[in-house]
Amino acid sequence: MNNEAALVVFSGGQDSTTCLFWAKKHFKKVYALSFLYGQKHEKEVELAREIARKAEVEFSVMDVSFIGHLGKNSLTDSSIRMDEEKPADSFPNTFVPGRNLFFLSIAAVYARERGVNHIVTGVSQTDFSGYPDCRDGFIKSLNVTLNLAMEEQFVIHTPLMWIDKAQTWALADELGVLDLIRNETLTCYNGIPGDGCGHCPACKLRREGLEKYLAIKASTK
Amino acid sequence: MNNEAALVVFSGGQDSTTCLFWAKKHFKKVYALSFLYGQKHEKEVELAREIARKAEVEFSVMDVSFIGHLGKNSLTDSSIRMDEEKPADSFPNTFVPGRNLFFLSIAAVYARERGVNHIVTGVSQTDFSGYPDCRDGFIKSLNVTLNLAMEEQFVIHTPLMWIDKAQTWALADELGVLDLIRNETLTCYNGIPGDGCGHCPACKLRREGLEKYLAIKASTK
Repeated sequence: MNNEAALVVFSGGQDSTTCLFWAKKHFKKVYALSFLYGQKHEKEVELAREIARKAEVEFSVMDVSFIGHLGKNSLTDSSIRMDEEKPADSFPNTFVPGRNLFFLSIAAVYARERGVNHIVTGVSQTDFSGYPDCRDGFIKSLNVTLNLAMEEQFVIHTPLMWIDKAQTWALADELGVLDLIRNETLTCYNGIPGDGCGHCPACKLRREGLEKYLAIKASTK
Repeated sequence: MNNEAALVVFSGGQDSTTCLFWAKKHFKKVYALSFLYGQKHEKEVELAREIARKAEVEFSVMDVSFIGHLGKNSLTDSSIRMDEEKPADSFPNTFVPGRNLFFLSIAAVYARERGVNHIVTGVSQTDFSGYPDCRDGFIKSLNVTLNLAMEEQFVIHTPLMWIDKAQTWALADELGVLDLIRNETLTCYNGIPGDGCGHCPACKLRREGLEKYLAIKASTK
């Protein structure tokens, strides 16, 4: 069991970048793994590479574009208009079925090849936008499944699981990377880095969290 | 919940072909899904297509060659000599880490898109050749994980889990496809259809099972 290294599932967004710096604080050696899955804004991978370079972690990209061919969704299919609100009776059409299942499964095989047992992901049940594969129960079940699949002992860490976006900004500030995350990460579904387009669900969530955190911070000075 | 259709993870080998005909007996509509994962003998997919045509089931192939790039193993890397026996202290080097994890996860997303809940796989714990992802505990854990990942109700069927190769031949005979499976399927690690190369682990297992079943059958006539 190697407790000195961790692999971060890394998209270059706010959440996974916070996790990258969280991992750097807790592990000696950190790997960052990004995915090309046919997303409309592939430049997120280039932003991720640049952040990984600044963070001085080993960076890899895996092409898993088969995921985009499995189901219809608005993140990988430009003929579908993106849901800006979650429909009352179904998943938002930004849901890519099985996405975290594949990312984490691939991350586990990749980690195993490098003798790494610890895997870090930025999923959060608090901001759960209708995505079942961000829930704690799913992650724990997958952790057991991965261990059984490869007779390994993986530990999946989810530092953001029970905190909201304002607390994620607080964590970034505590880790000394609030400005880096605010200016250099890409969270926006429309592919605009930093403060983003401002109206997609991801931008709204991110901005509201930042405003809330900055207000709390100002009030406690 | 759709109980009239099933998706079979289908390689065109003895086990999955037996499962294909088992599924045809139990479900009205059957889909067969094959994978290109960088295996040395890609012609198995063409044999699979031909069997699916004869069985009159809907056949698809998914390219998941990323699996071959994740780890080193002798099934996808021709520079590695294949283990003919399982090493005492580790997996045989024919183990592709995570293979069944990926095949079944992709099968689930594929099934979900088609409104199919039942998934059939030919894994067997009895002939378990050192592969952890053929065990019953792994399959059951994965079933729960898949249901949580997509908020679905999948049912993974493993008709061969607790039977040995001789009993698998008996099942084929019962389903009326012993000759088809003996002559047209590919099980051999060296890519030779039918009775195969005769000396790789898969051929040995297959032949010994057939001889045992034919001897039992002859003795009970």
